[in-house]
Amino acid sequence: MLANTILIIGTGLIGGSFAKGLKQRNLIRCAIGYGRRYEQLELGIELAVIDEAARDLPQAIARADVIVLGVPTLTVADYLDVIAEHRKADSVVTDVASVKGEIAHVIREHYGVIPPWFVLGHPIAGSEKSGITASNSDLYVHHKVILTPEVDTDENALALIRALWEGVGADVVCMGIDEHDRVLAATSHLPHALAFSLVDCLQAMDANVDVFRFAAGGFRDFTRIAGSHPVMWHDIMLANKSAILEMMGEFKATLSNLENAIENDDSDTILAMFERAKASREHFAGLIDAASSTESNAAKSADLSKDKN
Amino acid sequence: MLANTILIIGTGLIGGSFAKGLKQRNLIRCAIGYGRRYEQLELGIELAVIDEAARDLPQAIARADVIVLGVPTLTVADYLDVIAEHRKADSVVTDVASVKGEIAHVIREHYGVIPPWFVLGHPIAGSEKSGITASNSDLYVHHKVILTPEVDTDENALALIRALWEGVGADVVCMGIDEHDRVLAATSHLPHALAFSLVDCLQAMDANVDVFRFAAGGFRDFTRIAGSHPVMWHDIMLANKSAILEMMGEFKATLSNLENAIENDDSDTILAMFERAKASREHFAGLIDAASSTESNAAKSADLSKDKN
Repeated sequence: MLANTILIIGTGLIGGSFAKGLKQRNLIRCAIGYGRRYEQLELGIELAVIDEAARDLPQAIARADVIVLGVPTLTVADYLDVIAEHRKADSVVTDVASVKGEIAHVIREHYGVIPPWFVLGHPIAGSEKSGITASNSDLYVHHKVILTPEVDTDENALALIRALWEGVGADVVCMGIDEHDRVLAATSHLPHALAFSLVDCLQAMDANVDVFRFAAGGFRDFTRIAGSHPVMWHDIMLANKSAILEMMGEFKATLSNLENAIENDDSDTILAMFERAKASREHFAGLIDAASSTESNAAKSADLSKDKN
Repeated sequence: MLANTILIIGTGLIGGSFAKGLKQRNLIRCAIGYGRRYEQLELGIELAVIDEAARDLPQAIARADVIVLGVPTLTVADYLDVIAEHRKADSVVTDVASVKGEIAHVIREHYGVIPPWFVLGHPIAGSEKSGITASNSDLYVHHKVILTPEVDTDENALALIRALWEGVGADVVCMGIDEHDRVLAATSHLPHALAFSLVDCLQAMDANVDVFRFAAGGFRDFTRIAGSHPVMWHDIMLANKSAILEMMGEFKATLSNLENAIENDDSDTILAMFERAKASREHFAGLIDAASSTESNAAKSADLSKDKN
């Protein structure tokens, strides 16, 4: 058992799956959930995601050894004061926001600093599903969780958060805030921007029915992420604006190189680029597959978990 | 039985799978294969892809009721004269090139016109595998095949080619050459260009190991097609240059709109775009899924076929 009482503020897919995973593995004694809709929390108790549903947030905060902010980035600020006021002296707080720079900024605005007891984190996982009913205790198995501790982050606080994530099966990595935001811009935010743009571009075309009718060979996967939650992705685009705009610029430059090469029948450039891309893709295929296959594993485990529960 | 003798010039995945599918369903009496490497053809006989391996191309042409040009776009021209010289008067010729405008141009250059006995076609199917050993008799089940007949295309020739493709399970659609090339530019060629560009862009980044290490959530699928055959895609980019450059321009404009909206914190524009994309994606999900799910079905059937053979 790693901690006694954990409080999940915002029991969506991310926070809910974390709680469920910890409970199932007996890593915590009691999981309290707090969220906007009480009936959802009650459902969460039935689904063994949490043990209790909090009505009184200050009280719940005062009981917690670990507090997880599972709410969207833009609402984290709403909880910072009540947490600071009621938390136990030795409790640890963490978050799950996909952009760390913005959260760090919000926290500094509220507290003046990032407190030693606040460990910024980002579990790289998820699915198109959402909400407490989608909670999956194996969601994080073999998934990466990035923690972005500061110089002043308390070592024990960091160690505890790391242990909790590792406890539910995640691979935990530490890196700097800016590095995190750049890596995520490249591997997640930009691809989403491209997928949204591609679908938007095609739906505007004449005969778009035919366009989608003849979609095949990867198009579905390419655009699947364009079915992602618009509000969440709007928030991410603005929260990670600087890194995303930088990546967009790099991408447009690369695409323009290809465009010019095609225009000029420049076979050498086209071939070199495609061969370089294929080589990279294959070189890193092992890494990419390892990161991605766990999604299907988690989905299978989710089915098994449902049966068990 | 739809035809007596079929000649496949270029027994790669596409031509080989067509032959294998026709043979397995007893739609033709005899399939002759012709290709650069005789030992591959012999392997094709063992694998029940073809019945005979041709050493003498003119002789094989003279025997054929149907000739399928399964060779890459840029080599089709090499066969046009020998076909015209030795073909039976009532034989039908078809191709499988993914860009129709370029092939039409090549054919007109050679013959002055597109002959009534030449039915241009494009089976939209494939996988990362290649070669005669990858031939799969169910590759085309529920896949689209686009035929682009001209005004002068012989009706019976068209009907025969249609029947052969439908015989191996494909859904056959007719459309104009330009329309075909635009649809393919949008749904296949541009996504490939984007995937190649994304991977090339990322591999050039500092710390690219980290970049690929943290790839998750759709990145693999997004970039899977960047593992496609560089030469084949080089050929396609140049063969469909005009439609591809047009699509690239449209795409870059859409991406720039998003870029500007992010730069200007223009929430309304960002949200509208993402919601539009999500709505389209879901509206067309049925079509896209139907087009794509057959890939996995075909793969499963391929395993079954292997056992049968």
